[in-house]
Amino acid sequence: MANITKKVSWSSRADESGATGEGTPLLNGSEQPRHSRQLSEGRSIFQIGRLSTVDLEEEITSDEDSLRGRPKEIPHNEKLLSLKFESLDYDNIENQLFLEEERRMSYMGFRCLEISRWVVCGLIGFLTGLIACFIDIVVEELAGIKYQVVKQNIEKFTEAGGLSISLILWAVFNSAFVMVGAIIVAYFEPIAAGSGIPQIKCYLNGIKIPRVVRLKTLVVKVCGVICSVVGGLAVGKEGPMIHSGAVVAAGVSQGRSTSLKRDFKIFEYFRRDTEKRDFVSAGAAAGVSAAFGAPVGGVLFSLEEGASFWNQMLTWRIFFASMISTFTLNFFLSIYHNKPGDLSSPGLINFGRFESDSVAYNLYEIPLFIAMGAIGGILGALFNVLNYWLTIFRIRYVHRPCLQVMEAMLVAAVTATVSFTMIYFSNDCQPLGPEHNEEYPLQLFCADGEYNSMATAFFNTPERSVRSLFHNQPGSYNPLTLGLFTLTYFFLACWTYGLAVSAGVFIPSLLIGAAWGRLFGILLASITSNATIWADPGKYALIGAAAQLGGIVRMTLSLTVIMVEATGNVTYGLPIMLVLMTAKIVGDYFVEGLYDIHIKLQSVPFLHWEAPATSHWLTAREVMSSPVTCLNRIEKVGTIVDVLSNTSTNHNGFPVVVQVAGSDEPAKLCGLILRSQLIVLLKHKVFVELARSRLNQRKLQLKDFRDAYPRFPPIQSIHVSQDERECMMDLTEFMNPTPYTVPQETSLPRVFKLFRALGLRHLVVVDDQNRVIGLVTRKDLARYHLGKHGLEELQLAHT
Amino acid sequence: MANITKKVSWSSRADESGATGEGTPLLNGSEQPRHSRQLSEGRSIFQIGRLSTVDLEEEITSDEDSLRGRPKEIPHNEKLLSLKFESLDYDNIENQLFLEEERRMSYMGFRCLEISRWVVCGLIGFLTGLIACFIDIVVEELAGIKYQVVKQNIEKFTEAGGLSISLILWAVFNSAFVMVGAIIVAYFEPIAAGSGIPQIKCYLNGIKIPRVVRLKTLVVKVCGVICSVVGGLAVGKEGPMIHSGAVVAAGVSQGRSTSLKRDFKIFEYFRRDTEKRDFVSAGAAAGVSAAFGAPVGGVLFSLEEGASFWNQMLTWRIFFASMISTFTLNFFLSIYHNKPGDLSSPGLINFGRFESDSVAYNLYEIPLFIAMGAIGGILGALFNVLNYWLTIFRIRYVHRPCLQVMEAMLVAAVTATVSFTMIYFSNDCQPLGPEHNEEYPLQLFCADGEYNSMATAFFNTPERSVRSLFHNQPGSYNPLTLGLFTLTYFFLACWTYGLAVSAGVFIPSLLIGAAWGRLFGILLASITSNATIWADPGKYALIGAAAQLGGIVRMTLSLTVIMVEATGNVTYGLPIMLVLMTAKIVGDYFVEGLYDIHIKLQSVPFLHWEAPATSHWLTAREVMSSPVTCLNRIEKVGTIVDVLSNTSTNHNGFPVVVQVAGSDEPAKLCGLILRSQLIVLLKHKVFVELARSRLNQRKLQLKDFRDAYPRFPPIQSIHVSQDERECMMDLTEFMNPTPYTVPQETSLPRVFKLFRALGLRHLVVVDDQNRVIGLVTRKDLARYHLGKHGLEELQLAHT
Repeated sequence: MANITKKVSWSSRADESGATGEGTPLLNGSEQPRHSRQLSEGRSIFQIGRLSTVDLEEEITSDEDSLRGRPKEIPHNEKLLSLKFESLDYDNIENQLFLEEERRMSYMGFRCLEISRWVVCGLIGFLTGLIACFIDIVVEELAGIKYQVVKQNIEKFTEAGGLSISLILWAVFNSAFVMVGAIIVAYFEPIAAGSGIPQIKCYLNGIKIPRVVRLKTLVVKVCGVICSVVGGLAVGKEGPMIHSGAVVAAGVSQGRSTSLKRDFKIFEYFRRDTEKRDFVSAGAAAGVSAAFGAPVGGVLFSLEEGASFWNQMLTWRIFFASMISTFTLNFFLSIYHNKPGDLSSPGLINFGRFESDSVAYNLYEIPLFIAMGAIGGILGALFNVLNYWLTIFRIRYVHRPCLQVMEAMLVAAVTATVSFTMIYFSNDCQPLGPEHNEEYPLQLFCADGEYNSMATAFFNTPERSVRSLFHNQPGSYNPLTLGLFTLTYFFLACWTYGLAVSAGVFIPSLLIGAAWGRLFGILLASITSNATIWADPGKYALIGAAAQLGGIVRMTLSLTVIMVEATGNVTYGLPIMLVLMTAKIVGDYFVEGLYDIHIKLQSVPFLHWEAPATSHWLTAREVMSSPVTCLNRIEKVGTIVDVLSNTSTNHNGFPVVVQVAGSDEPAKLCGLILRSQLIVLLKHKVFVELARSRLNQRKLQLKDFRDAYPRFPPIQSIHVSQDERECMMDLTEFMNPTPYTVPQETSLPRVFKLFRALGLRHLVVVDDQNRVIGLVTRKDLARYHLGKHGLEELQLAHT
Repeated sequence: MANITKKVSWSSRADESGATGEGTPLLNGSEQPRHSRQLSEGRSIFQIGRLSTVDLEEEITSDEDSLRGRPKEIPHNEKLLSLKFESLDYDNIENQLFLEEERRMSYMGFRCLEISRWVVCGLIGFLTGLIACFIDIVVEELAGIKYQVVKQNIEKFTEAGGLSISLILWAVFNSAFVMVGAIIVAYFEPIAAGSGIPQIKCYLNGIKIPRVVRLKTLVVKVCGVICSVVGGLAVGKEGPMIHSGAVVAAGVSQGRSTSLKRDFKIFEYFRRDTEKRDFVSAGAAAGVSAAFGAPVGGVLFSLEEGASFWNQMLTWRIFFASMISTFTLNFFLSIYHNKPGDLSSPGLINFGRFESDSVAYNLYEIPLFIAMGAIGGILGALFNVLNYWLTIFRIRYVHRPCLQVMEAMLVAAVTATVSFTMIYFSNDCQPLGPEHNEEYPLQLFCADGEYNSMATAFFNTPERSVRSLFHNQPGSYNPLTLGLFTLTYFFLACWTYGLAVSAGVFIPSLLIGAAWGRLFGILLASITSNATIWADPGKYALIGAAAQLGGIVRMTLSLTVIMVEATGNVTYGLPIMLVLMTAKIVGDYFVEGLYDIHIKLQSVPFLHWEAPATSHWLTAREVMSSPVTCLNRIEKVGTIVDVLSNTSTNHNGFPVVVQVAGSDEPAKLCGLILRSQLIVLLKHKVFVELARSRLNQRKLQLKDFRDAYPRFPPIQSIHVSQDERECMMDLTEFMNPTPYTVPQETSLPRVFKLFRALGLRHLVVVDDQNRVIGLVTRKDLARYHLGKHGLEELQLAHT
C-alpha cells in the first residue's frame, strides 16, 4: 500500500514516516469546531482519499478491514484539499540562537555569506548546464543510431517489399527504450514522472513535495527523459530540465545528499527553508535557461511561479545562475559540434535563425495573429480537457507500476505505428535540394532526388521537426500533410502527457502549433492568391506554436520572453505577447492550464496570488483552525511528548504562552515553536531537572538544528524514559519570540496578503488581550476558491 | 523662500501648505526619548537643513530672524534624512466602510473593476506612446531645421572664410532653445528638471514626492526635453519618457486633473495609494518601453525599482501597458516615416540592426568584454563623483532660477563651441560612400566626395551619433577622433546632468561608451594586427556603451533586458550581462549609482531591499518613535483638533485605543486612523452630540474620502466652533481595525521585511498586553545604513 501511494500521488510522506496505516487526521485539531465543514462527509472523504491510491493486491487487506467493501471503480473528486502536504517556512525563525549567531557575525561574515551564495548559484548554473548537455548529446547519439538503423531498414525493404518488418523494428526500438524509461520511473521514483513543472511550481509556492528534490529523483529523471525522447514518444526534453535544475540547486546549496549519504560540511548556513527555496528558484531558472537558451525567461519563470517577495540581489543571483547555465551548455555543445568557442546555440531547443527581413510583420497581420491566439486557446483547452479525463482514468485504473509500464510501451508502439502509417500513405514528395537540411530524409516511394515530406515531421526528433516547420522553404509541405500531422500528433501528445515517463509537454505543444500555424499560413496564401505578402509560412508556424503552447500551459510574461529568446529575434515580441494573451483569455474561459489541472488533481494546497475577490466577508476568526494546542514556555517533557505523539493531531507549530505566576490573568502569547524544533530538543535531551533551574545539560547550537534539517526524525523514534518525562524543558531560547499575529477581525484578503507576501507557515490569531485563539495555516487559506457559484470551500481530506 | 525651496529641492510641501516658517518638527514627538540621537545637533542640523534651500534675497529676513547670521557658503550634508517627505500607503485601509463596500460588490463588480484596470493600462500605454511620438517628431523636425541652416551657413563660409560667424550662429541657436527649456523648468516647475528617474524611483519606493505626477509637470517636461535636445545639449530624450509615462498613469487612473481642475468622475475606485502606485508602475514601464522599444525591459524596470510584492496579474497588466505604448509609438512613427504599418522601429532610440553573422562573438572575447566592463565601472564612478561635486556646488551657489537659466545657456554655448572647434581642427576625412547614411555630412575642409568624420559624432542628434558608432563601416573613424570625442563628451555630459533642463543621461552615457568602445575595438585590431578577427568595431562600441551606462546608473537585470531589446538581437545577452555585472561591481567599489547619489542628496528616506546586514542587534523598541499620540475610539472633537493642529508634532497616523469602562486595565490597541481621514471627518462634521449616541448626523461614504484624495486640506482651513469642540467623534467605522503590529522585541530586519514587503506606512509596536508603545515609520527604518565603519545612523532633519 505504502508503495503504491508513492506511485500515483506526488506525496510519499506516509511511505517515509512509516505510518501509513494510521489515519493521520486533520492538522490542528479542527475536527470539533468545524465538524460540519470538514468532516461532515469525513468517512467517505477519507475513503475516497485513501482509495484513490489503493493497490488492488492482497497485501492491503491485512490492516485495512474497513476498506474491504470498496468499489472497483474509484470516484475521484478534485474538490478536496489534501492534508498531507506540509508548507515550507519562508519566514526565518528568529529565536535567540539565531539572533545570537547573527549578532556575532561581522560585516565581513555577511560578505562571505553573500559570496558563497554567488558561488552556489554559479555551481547550480554550471551543473545544470552540464546535465542539459549530457542529455542532449546522449539523445542525439542514440536517436541518430535508431533513425539510421530504421532508415536503412526501410530503404532495404522499400524495394524488396515487406515494409511491415521495418515497422516492427521501429516499434520494438521505441518500446524498448520507453520500457526502460517507464520502469525506472514507475518502480524507483514515481515523482520523476512527467515534466516536473507542476511539482516545482508547488515547491516554489511553498509546499513541501516529498522526494522532489532528491538526487535519486534527478538520476531517474535524466535517464527517463533520455529513454522517452529516444523512444520516439511525443515528448520534449525541455520541461524536465526545470526539475533537474531545481534538484541540483537543492543539493548543491545544502552541501550534502541523502541519496549519497554524504555530508560535505559546507554551506551549513543555508540549511533552512528560506535559503533553500531561494536556491531552488535559481535552479529552476537555470533549467529554463538551459532548456530554451532563455536566461531572462528563466528568471521570469522563477519569479512568476515562486516569488513571494521580489528582491533585487536575489533576482540578480538567479540571473547569474541562468546565465552560467546557458553559457555552459552552449560551450560544451560547441565543442561537441566541433565548433569550439562558437556560442550561438544557447539552449536545448533552438528555433533557428529568423532573419529579420523575411519575417517582418505588418499591421494588418495583427488581427490574424489574434485569431490564431484564439484558435490556440481553444485547441489548448481541448487538449487540457482530454488530458484531464485521461488523468482521472489513469488515477482510477492505471496505478500499478506494471500497468503504467505497459501503457507507456503501448503508447510508444502506437506512436511508431501511426507515424509509419502516415509516412507510408503520404504521397507528399519534395525535391531534395542541394543544401537540404534534413537529417534523415526518407525517400520511400518518392522519385529519386525527392524525399517524403511527412517523414520530416514524424521521422525525426521533435526539436528538429519544429525547426523544419519554422524554416523550411515555402512549399516544403502540402496542406494535407500538415493537417494530418496536426491531428494525429495532437492526440498522441495528449495521450502521452501523464504517462509514467519523464517528459515535457513544451515541445509537443510547439510542434502541434507549428504544424497548424504553417497550415494557416499556406491557406492564407492560397485564399488571397497573393503569395508574395504571405510568402513565409514559417512566420505563421512560429505564431501557431506560441498560440498552442500558451493555450496549454497558460503562462504569460515568462513564456513570452522564453519564446522571444528562443527565437533570437525581438521583432516578434509584440505578436507573441498578443497571441499568448489571447490564448490565455480564451483558454481560461473553458478550463485551467494543464499544470494547474494536475496540481488540483493532487489536491495540493496551492496559494494563488490573491485571495478570491469576494472573500472580504470572511475574517480570520472564521478561517482559522481552533482550538490550538499551546505549550507553556517552561513545559513538562511528558506533555510535549504526548502532544507530539498524539496521532489525532499532527500539528507542526505550537504557540508558546506564558502565564504570569500567581495571577489569574489569561496566558499571553510569547512565541511559536515548531514540531521539528521540539524533536531536536527531545533528541538532545535538553531538559532541566527542576522547573526553576535554567542550567541546560548541554548548550544546544543552531548547528544541531541545521544538521537535522530537513528530515527530522518522527517522534516515535525518540525514546524518553519515565524519569525524563518528569523533567521540564525551557523553550525560551528556541522558540520564535516574535511570530506574526493578526487580530481575529482581520479580513481574509488581508490575512492572505500577509501570509503570501512573507511566505509564512503559521500565522497566530490573537484577541485584543494577546491571547491565542487560533492558528491560520496554508490549508485554511487555500481552502477558499472562486467557483462558478461564487466562493466555494474545498474539503480537507487525507488523500 | 518658499519659492526657492521648490527650486533646489524636490519637495515643495512647505510651499503648498503655506507653513514654511514654522519648523515642522520631528514626526511623532520623538524629541524626548531620542534627544541625544536626533537633536544633539538639533539647532545646527536645523540650520543646515533650512539653509541649503535658502534664497539670498531680502524677503526672507521678515520671518527668519534666527537665521540672520548665516554663512554665505552653505554646508551640505548628505548624512541627513529629511522629515518632509511623506510615505505612500500601499496597505489598504480596511475600515468598516471599505469592507462594507467590498462585501456589497458582486463577483461581476470585481470583474468590471479588473476590466477597467486593463482599460486604464491600455490608455496609459497609448498616451505614453503618443507623447513619445510627439517628442520624437518635433525634435526631428526642429533639429532638422537647425542642422540644415547651420550646415548651409558653414558651407557658405568654408570657402568664403569667416567660419566664426557659423559658430556664433550655432551657439545662438543652441542657447536660444536651451533658454526656453531652462526658463520653463526653473520658473514654472523645477521638479521637471533632469530625467525624473530618481523621482520615479522614490515614488515607486513608496515616497510621496510633491508635484511629481502633475499634468503641469508633464507639459513642462515634454516642452523642456524638446528644447534641450534641439538645443544640442549632451542629453537624451529617453529618461524623461519614464517620468512622462508615470504622470500619464497617475492622471488617467485618477480620472481627474488638479492642473486642469477637472474631475471626470471615472475610476473613482482607484483613488487610493495602492491602486495609484500600481498604475504609476505601469506608466513608468510604458515610458521605458516607448523610449527603448523594450516592453519586457520596462516591466523589469518597474519591478526592480518599485515592486513590494510581485503579483502576476499586475505584472501582466504592466506588460500590456508597455506593449501598447511601444506599439503606438511604432505605428505613428511608421506613418510619419511614410511606411505605414511597418512595425520595425519600436522605440525612440533604435540601435539599428545588428546582423547575427557579423557580430557573433567568441569565447576568447569574453575576458575582453569583462575588462571593458571594468573600464566602464571606473569611468562611470568618475562621472558620478564629478557630478556629485558639481551638484553640491550647484546646491550651494546656483539655486536662483535666473542663475540656473544662465548656467544652462552657458553649457549650451560651450557645447556648440567645443563641438565646432573639434570639427574645425579635425582632419579625419572619410569618403562619402554611395549609400552613405549620414544625415548632415559636413564637408568642411575635406576633399570633394569626402566628409568630416568628427562631424558625424558632434554635428548630429545624439541618437544618430550612437547609431553611427555602432554601425558605420570599420575605418569610418580614426582613433584620435574617437579619443577626443570621448574626452570632451564625457565632461560635457557630466556638466549637463543636473542642469535645470529636462533631459536624460542614458543617451550621453551610451554615446561616451560607444565612442571608447569603438576605439577599444580599433586598438585591438591594430595591436593584434589580425584585422579579420576583430573586424567589427561596432560590436565593441555596443559593449562599451553598455559598460559606460551600467557604470553610471548601476541598474542590473532591467538594463540588460533593455539593451538586448534595443539591440533587437538576443545573441548579445550574455556579454551584456557580464559587462553590466562587472561595471556594477567595480563601480560600487568607488561610489554609488548616479540616481542613488541624487536621491541621497535630497535626503529622501529611501528604503532599500533589505535591512543592513549587521542590524540584528536592533529591535523594534530601539527603532520606533515613542511616545505615540493615541486617540480614544470615541474622542472629543476638541482633542482631535488640538492634536492635529499641534505644529510641534505633525503625525500622520494615530493608533486608536479603547479603555474598558470602569476598569483600570491599560488601554488596548483597537485600530489606526490617519490624519487625512480625521480631516475629512472634521470637514464633514461627523460628530455625535452625546458620547453614547451612535447616530451620526450624516452617513459618510467612502466616496467622500476618495473625493478628497490625495490633497487633503490642512487642519487650519477647517473651522470648528467652540460648541462643536465639545462634541464627540466615533472613529470605529473609519479607523483601520486591524493594523499590522509587531512585539517590541522584534529585530530590525524582521520589522524591515514586514514593512517593505507590504509597503506599509505605519507599523504599531505593542507590548504583550496589546498596549501601544511605539510606532515605526519609514524614517525610522531608512535611518540605518551600512557605512564604512559598520552600521550608521542618519540624522533626521527638516531639510
